[in-house]
Amino acid sequence: MSFYDATVPLFIQMLTALTGILNKAEAHCQAKGIQPEVLLSARLYPDMLPLTKQVQLACDFAGKSAARLAHVEVPATADTEKSFDELRQRLATTVDYLKTFKPEQFEGADAKDVTFPAGANTNLTLKGQQFFNRFALPNFFFHTSIAHGILRHNGVEIGKRDFLGVA
Amino acid sequence: MSFYDATVPLFIQMLTALTGILNKAEAHCQAKGIQPEVLLSARLYPDMLPLTKQVQLACDFAGKSAARLAHVEVPATADTEKSFDELRQRLATTVDYLKTFKPEQFEGADAKDVTFPAGANTNLTLKGQQFFNRFALPNFFFHTSIAHGILRHNGVEIGKRDFLGVA
Repeated sequence: MSFYDATVPLFIQMLTALTGILNKAEAHCQAKGIQPEVLLSARLYPDMLPLTKQVQLACDFAGKSAARLAHVEVPATADTEKSFDELRQRLATTVDYLKTFKPEQFEGADAKDVTFPAGANTNLTLKGQQFFNRFALPNFFFHTSIAHGILRHNGVEIGKRDFLGVA
Repeated sequence: MSFYDATVPLFIQMLTALTGILNKAEAHCQAKGIQPEVLLSARLYPDMLPLTKQVQLACDFAGKSAARLAHVEVPATADTEKSFDELRQRLATTVDYLKTFKPEQFEGADAKDVTFPAGANTNLTLKGQQFFNRFALPNFFFHTSIAHGILRHNGVEIGKRDFLGVA
């Protein structure tokens, strides 16, 4: 199997699904007379991150992880999104970026060292496979799942099929 | 890279992390005088599944997915757990089961067809890689993340490092 197959298509699928979830969340706001900012700033607990940041981090753990695995320059992101539209644009930009990667760029990447920031002033180095399994993928899914959980907790009618992108 | 490396070690790592999270959840109950049943039956929304079921499903999406990818008999699970101890035992049993798999059993598994139940009375067939990327892995992470989210929402002091299993 190719390492590319285990990484990039999965990110694209899940981010596309998340776009669909944001569509339903925005429609929910319109139907129920909820200010979009209320949902966009919703959290599961006061010291957890709000929906907007969960989506931004999902994008980063996809795009930046792909860059690290392919050993190309990691794109900078400004995290300025303040609306459903802007978050969807961020997701679309990330998906477009992911589509620029070619399977050849991931050849041997599972065994190559990846050095990445892990917390304040800390860099870690892991082999590509371990970086992906232990860090990039769990973090990516954490933020997509918590985004889903925030919206479910606030009554948006989405389900597992929306999460999987097969709705 | 080997398909085994992309699957079994990741499941083991995350289920081990989830065991640590349940330890902290139980300690939180003891410290705060909370009946364990209250946390075990907590949900993010009335029509979402409670913590106990999130943990059971995380175990199933790990163990049963590994069995499907290796094309061995899929183990039956009774879902009878009613305490933190029993859930930890379920996790330990699943980890022990995952450790029985050998990398050779996953050779070529990414390209082999996997037929699996997807909803009531529906079977789907996908290549192993797609089954893993589009179904097994997102479902597995969904349930581990929502279990984490339920506990965070209820004030248990856990963080991303607990989720990643590096705490």
